[in-house]
Amino acid sequence: MTLHPKAEATCGPDNRDAPDYSGLRAVFVNTSLKAANGDSHTAILLEQIATLMTRAGVSVDNIHMRDHHVAYGVQPDMTEHGADRDDWPALWKRIKPANILVVGTPLWLGEESSVCRVLIERLYGMSGELNDKGQSSYYGRVGGSVVTGNEDGIKHAAMTIGYALSHLGYTIPPQADCGWIGEAGPGPSYGDPKEDGTKVGFDNDFTARNATIMAWNLMHMAHLLRDGISNHGNDRRVWQAEGCDPSLPNPEHRV
Amino acid sequence: MTLHPKAEATCGPDNRDAPDYSGLRAVFVNTSLKAANGDSHTAILLEQIATLMTRAGVSVDNIHMRDHHVAYGVQPDMTEHGADRDDWPALWKRIKPANILVVGTPLWLGEESSVCRVLIERLYGMSGELNDKGQSSYYGRVGGSVVTGNEDGIKHAAMTIGYALSHLGYTIPPQADCGWIGEAGPGPSYGDPKEDGTKVGFDNDFTARNATIMAWNLMHMAHLLRDGISNHGNDRRVWQAEGCDPSLPNPEHRV
Amino acid sequence: MTLHPKAEATCGPDNRDAPDYSGLRAVFVNTSLKAANGDSHTAILLEQIATLMTRAGVSVDNIHMRDHHVAYGVQPDMTEHGADRDDWPALWKRIKPANILVVGTPLWLGEESSVCRVLIERLYGMSGELNDKGQSSYYGRVGGSVVTGNEDGIKHAAMTIGYALSHLGYTIPPQADCGWIGEAGPGPSYGDPKEDGTKVGFDNDFTARNATIMAWNLMHMAHLLRDGISNHGNDRRVWQAEGCDPSLPNPEHRV
Amino acid sequence: MTLHPKAEATCGPDNRDAPDYSGLRAVFVNTSLKAANGDSHTAILLEQIATLMTRAGVSVDNIHMRDHHVAYGVQPDMTEHGADRDDWPALWKRIKPANILVVGTPLWLGEESSVCRVLIERLYGMSGELNDKGQSSYYGRVGGSVVTGNEDGIKHAAMTIGYALSHLGYTIPPQADCGWIGEAGPGPSYGDPKEDGTKVGFDNDFTARNATIMAWNLMHMAHLLRDGISNHGNDRRVWQAEGCDPSLPNPEHRV
Repeated sequence: MTLHPKAEATCGPDNRDAPDYSGLRAVFVNTSLKAANGDSHTAILLEQIATLMTRAGVSVDNIHMRDHHVAYGVQPDMTEHGADRDDWPALWKRIKPANILVVGTPLWLGEESSVCRVLIERLYGMSGELNDKGQSSYYGRVGGSVVTGNEDGIKHAAMTIGYALSHLGYTIPPQADCGWIGEAGPGPSYGDPKEDGTKVGFDNDFTARNATIMAWNLMHMAHLLRDGISNHGNDRRVWQAEGCDPSLPNPEHRV
Repeated sequence: MTLHPKAEATCGPDNRDAPDYSGLRAVFVNTSLKAANGDSHTAILLEQIATLMTRAGVSVDNIHMRDHHVAYGVQPDMTEHGADRDDWPALWKRIKPANILVVGTPLWLGEESSVCRVLIERLYGMSGELNDKGQSSYYGRVGGSVVTGNEDGIKHAAMTIGYALSHLGYTIPPQADCGWIGEAGPGPSYGDPKEDGTKVGFDNDFTARNATIMAWNLMHMAHLLRDGISNHGNDRRVWQAEGCDPSLPNPEHRV
Repeated sequence: MTLHPKAEATCGPDNRDAPDYSGLRAVFVNTSLKAANGDSHTAILLEQIATLMTRAGVSVDNIHMRDHHVAYGVQPDMTEHGADRDDWPALWKRIKPANILVVGTPLWLGEESSVCRVLIERLYGMSGELNDKGQSSYYGRVGGSVVTGNEDGIKHAAMTIGYALSHLGYTIPPQADCGWIGEAGPGPSYGDPKEDGTKVGFDNDFTARNATIMAWNLMHMAHLLRDGISNHGNDRRVWQAEGCDPSLPNPEHRV
Repeated sequence: MTLHPKAEATCGPDNRDAPDYSGLRAVFVNTSLKAANGDSHTAILLEQIATLMTRAGVSVDNIHMRDHHVAYGVQPDMTEHGADRDDWPALWKRIKPANILVVGTPLWLGEESSVCRVLIERLYGMSGELNDKGQSSYYGRVGGSVVTGNEDGIKHAAMTIGYALSHLGYTIPPQADCGWIGEAGPGPSYGDPKEDGTKVGFDNDFTARNATIMAWNLMHMAHLLRDGISNHGNDRRVWQAEGCDPSLPNPEHRV
């Protein structure tokens, strides 16, 4: 993948000042409605960020949600609640250990995709799980969002995703969202070929700038948080608030 | 189903002034994450509105989305685009002719369910279809929303659903949303049995009032619009705006 | 003001089939942050819709919120609650009788303006007022939104405005929102002059189409509702729900 | 102010393990519509968090927005753009140096207040300012939100505030939002006196727990970021993206 020249300039091997973030793990989850990742416009922008991370030594794992059969529900494993099949437990094994989570979504009617909401619901379903410091197991991880669409909704979707991740326990670094949309009305999508051989949106300095800033901020913050966050004052075991119960349908109130 | 006494008082047969709306058709779509409609709390509030409509002579059809295999995507029939199975075309046959659409959703992390977004995406996927007056086929229909949850988000979800329906071509009557949530924090859900034999939320006059007002306003407006809306100035065939193309991924710009 | 040719074609005097909607009243409220209406880009798109309505015989009243000193608060007259000055009661006299309300807002950080929220709060502050049929005094009126910005947020703002109006008692006709935004990143705003003498966004058929459809749908629906809506089942006096009290801070629960 | 016993237990002087965060500065901005801070229910919950921070040695500054005349607009000083008066520059001197920003808002119609949007617009108006590392001057600061209302909207408002702060350059720590709302329908507000002498919402363990966790997470993260964030890859001076111009109305594209 070719990066924007100014994004390229931030990376090794040419840039000897670039931090080495090997040891960090990132997982990218594309919640496109498209069955195949190759048909997704969001995948193209996600890949730019993934490339920057790889170049900084981060180990990157890519998940295309539609490649998997993720069941509806908010329990850790829906096969224990009647589902015939649920690929979530396998995905969770890949998402949980990652220091960095990047959620990509397309826009339909100005909002994140249904597949993105499935992802959020399943992440929410794990929020009853605590780490050994009594915090949500999401503590010490960082999250961001990548949004592409035809004409409207980057900020709306970034709001939804950022809030969900933050509420669950992820840290949201500065400017951890980026995206591309065109002018109001129909038109080509991000990465579509143009007649002159270039690709739609690739000449948009702002999308490239925001993607680059986001990539580095996620890495800087993940590095800073690699040993987790103090559990002084945030240990949920201390509270055992009245009304919490492992059998509750509402995941965040199970502990 | 037992109605709130003041809701009951608006209906026939006892209330001889109640309008007779036989001839109107309504479809209720529950987008609960629950596999079984019987486990859904949203279903309980939906049923109260459906009962009011039935008592006014409206023909009511209930759809529990999870009873069907609705594919992801924004094309009218996703089996033509690679899906193994898609129950949407069959559901569309039931939704399209209905004068009234009521969408019910639970709240997870303060937002509508993923299943609700699937419904919105599939409705959106039909927005390239015009009626014989050149309008979106949703013209002349009315829509509303019913939202239940533990603690937060009725208005957020009603906003999303109402906007989507309106943008597609539904008319939104006054006060066409209702719901129930409890105090911040965990707790019982709408319709859960209480120790004294009553049910959670059933003593909430505001939920009952809003549900009743919503039911009647949907019926009044559907009756008013039963012959459709003038197509002066809104005939999309006149525009054939540059950039529209039947092959476009974006449904509303296919015509 | 010059209309798009296809918008022009829907109007009298040339179009003899155009409905005559004299007798209807519309109020347009621009919630731009700009002190002067003449500096507002949103005003330019609002004017196109106002022109269409005027041409159909509708009496149009334009309010630029920043021309007035509207106090913060949710009471009908904030001078009775400590404010030095409050122009809302005077504005309310113009807004209340209008069959049609069009709210225009710019986008800042992807959302409606603070001035727009002041408008919504003040409209909300009147929701304790009932008409002589026991309904919110907004019944029988119709509402829509016009949104312009640099790069993102039409649908988000339309969602917020449409929901607020609907919840208060306005009817939302089909496709009652329109707007213009450019590609992601900085750039000119709607109506800015271009080097070739044309204006930014004026060549966008979709913005013109949606504005035209919105204008006509608001008029068709206002005409249909000119005698109000039946109060069967929606008379709030019947409920006098426990907990309602004229002294409540929450306007919709004062009756 | 009396804290919840479990919040109290996290603090010095009794808790000798409590971190000492003297040296950190926090600013609390209450965007209540109420003219007087003493009438604001949001102020009561804000004060609990402020108390926790003070007890940890943090220097806390409280701003009640309505005590000041903050002009509408998105320029750093609106008196240079026609406003008669603008207290923002004075407030900015208090907000800018604070390591921690906590925004409090009430809910009206399920959303943040107009005063809250004024705050967001004015913060946005400063986003053209860079620190000496070429980053938004918000880098290295952390933000969170406190939301109270009668019945609905904590998450919606937290979404809006959290996104705005993050997009501007604040870091959002885990679970940096808290709030209180009651059951659907009218009712008392947070902190209202009850007949038994206690106060509404004070017995809600979840509100207390979330407020405590939020307070500590803001402090932990501000401490971690006290020396700022590496500017590798996020130096905006490198980009000087085409289209950026100090005269642009859109603050984030002025540099």
